[in-house]
Amino acid sequence: MDERLARTVEAIKTSGADWGLFTSPDGVAYTSGHVVSIEAGPSAFAGGPALVVVGRNGECGLVATNLETGTQSFANPILTYQGFSFEEPTDIFANYLDATRKLLTQFGVSGTVAIEPESFPASLMPLIETCKRVSIRDAFKRARMVKTPAEIALLRQAALAASAGQRAFLEKTQEGRSELEVFADIRLAMESFAGERLPVTGDFISGKERTSAFMGWPGNRRIETGDPLICDLAPRVQGYWGDSCASAMLGHPSAAFEKQFRAAKSALDLAMEIIRPGLVIGELDQRLQAHIKSQGYGYAHHSGHSIGTSVHEWPRLVAYETESFHKDMVVMVEPTAFDPDTGGVRLEFMLHVTDNGCDVLTDFEHRLSI
Amino acid sequence: MDERLARTVEAIKTSGADWGLFTSPDGVAYTSGHVVSIEAGPSAFAGGPALVVVGRNGECGLVATNLETGTQSFANPILTYQGFSFEEPTDIFANYLDATRKLLTQFGVSGTVAIEPESFPASLMPLIETCKRVSIRDAFKRARMVKTPAEIALLRQAALAASAGQRAFLEKTQEGRSELEVFADIRLAMESFAGERLPVTGDFISGKERTSAFMGWPGNRRIETGDPLICDLAPRVQGYWGDSCASAMLGHPSAAFEKQFRAAKSALDLAMEIIRPGLVIGELDQRLQAHIKSQGYGYAHHSGHSIGTSVHEWPRLVAYETESFHKDMVVMVEPTAFDPDTGGVRLEFMLHVTDNGCDVLTDFEHRLSI
Repeated sequence: MDERLARTVEAIKTSGADWGLFTSPDGVAYTSGHVVSIEAGPSAFAGGPALVVVGRNGECGLVATNLETGTQSFANPILTYQGFSFEEPTDIFANYLDATRKLLTQFGVSGTVAIEPESFPASLMPLIETCKRVSIRDAFKRARMVKTPAEIALLRQAALAASAGQRAFLEKTQEGRSELEVFADIRLAMESFAGERLPVTGDFISGKERTSAFMGWPGNRRIETGDPLICDLAPRVQGYWGDSCASAMLGHPSAAFEKQFRAAKSALDLAMEIIRPGLVIGELDQRLQAHIKSQGYGYAHHSGHSIGTSVHEWPRLVAYETESFHKDMVVMVEPTAFDPDTGGVRLEFMLHVTDNGCDVLTDFEHRLSI
Repeated sequence: MDERLARTVEAIKTSGADWGLFTSPDGVAYTSGHVVSIEAGPSAFAGGPALVVVGRNGECGLVATNLETGTQSFANPILTYQGFSFEEPTDIFANYLDATRKLLTQFGVSGTVAIEPESFPASLMPLIETCKRVSIRDAFKRARMVKTPAEIALLRQAALAASAGQRAFLEKTQEGRSELEVFADIRLAMESFAGERLPVTGDFISGKERTSAFMGWPGNRRIETGDPLICDLAPRVQGYWGDSCASAMLGHPSAAFEKQFRAAKSALDLAMEIIRPGLVIGELDQRLQAHIKSQGYGYAHHSGHSIGTSVHEWPRLVAYETESFHKDMVVMVEPTAFDPDTGGVRLEFMLHVTDNGCDVLTDFEHRLSI
């Protein structure tokens, strides 16, 4: 049994349920290995979200339209339904319902079912109306906290894709190019690494005004010498997200920017030094915040987050988090130094928590200037 | 009242409902003007999908997380809820539920509610359990069939974005470049036109083997002289999709490819000649299919589809469609000539049905070779 499936079964049991029904893209990827295409929103050829049904004995079935691209899913059975026909009318919503009903009947789903309430569609409610329903949310997030060896390998690939983008950022940023022009080269580097189109989120912003806002997607603004830049790249590769953030100044860095960069960089170094199993996560955040404040900057941000089939997973690295680091967690650490006068600097690495410390999964250097 | 809102009210009445609740990205965009970010899947900072509530008297309210980017929505009120806090714990799912409850209470929602059953989340079901529930699906698709003047203006912009991509396809395709490299230039042309990142779907494939499959996203394959190429570009601009497809051969076209291109091109010309209000849609498809077959090719495809806040809307241009063309419909027409030995050619324009014919919204030429 896939180790993720075993952990899913545990989450179902912890929820007091007999069966788990998963409908979010990240939940479907985790429980079945099936990667849902997300870049263009919900498919116009689907009668509802792809659905995974998992039982306490390790049963794992998938319902997906016949027009979704090839799946690496370990689910069995995989029931596909007709999502479109140009030859004769077909009701894709009824087809979706029928395929789901068939799977539930084949598995004998009854008793208590755990669902993802934010993505489980109203259209399927009649199929489980005789079951008791509970939310899988809390148990599922805990089950996903520590990553399996296969997940760590996938997350490493995603980290390397992000790193290819970060190297392109340093190589391709030039005076007079627009943010979108540089971002096209960055995205190409990540997609060429993976050999396919990738969903990408993050930020790409230039100039004091935009970097002060900390977040934003690229536009037609032309990059000028003396601009601070923030390049936060989160690509999804084979269902797993990578993440990373660099901040650098184009041209000779100002003293103010250099001081800010050093503050964020030393906070990131501190995090890599102290993260190990047993450290309380809230304590990490507090120490990084204190460090940044001691350098004279604000910290209007979290210190990072876990990552997996969702780009932000629990636990987030925030002051109030009482959970500790565990071996084989994969976390983003992204301390920030914020100054309303000079903009913001954010430096982020992707870390794998090991037996007695952490390894860096990303493969690029933070540089002060370009 | 926004004309789309007026049509939404009609759809609610036709459904026999007092209120409509909209949760799909395309439904939310249509009913409120609020454009949901979709490129990276559901937001990790949202407690559920953005929600629009519309009443028979034109009430229109929106619930969205405070972390969604600025909205052009004409909804009033717009209720935002906290999607994350780094300072103190917050339950984003409870926040979403509370904001929705507040809006339903403020509007006095009761009686019969029409929902989008494939995207309405189970988490909100308790809020409407005393209401009678019906599906808005059929009435809503009919309400959206004919576009408003504001929609046609938005669709024209999306068509021009797609056209910028098609011109880049002709300019940037060169021997030895990878599909992903050319696609990066194409995407950049579309995004620079719009001044922002855009969700993009479609196909970009090269070589006989790949173009025979008709569909597929770009990869690392190097383009060679003599390759047929299919470039299908569908960007979303301000919530409205554009679409387009070109097919061309790199280098001197083979006689076989040229014959295929002429077949598809003459079918597209035929469509532009005969589409007008009153023509039965199924008849258009049958005439295009007959034309392609008379040229010696198969037609394993539809003839096109309507387009709006969803990239594929009803009615699709298929042989069994009994609906007729109406003034101010916007449709994609994409006849195909398929030959397993030489690959496929698909040529697509975006058309606006006028008083007595149709206008082409896209702004590029179909060329046989590059």
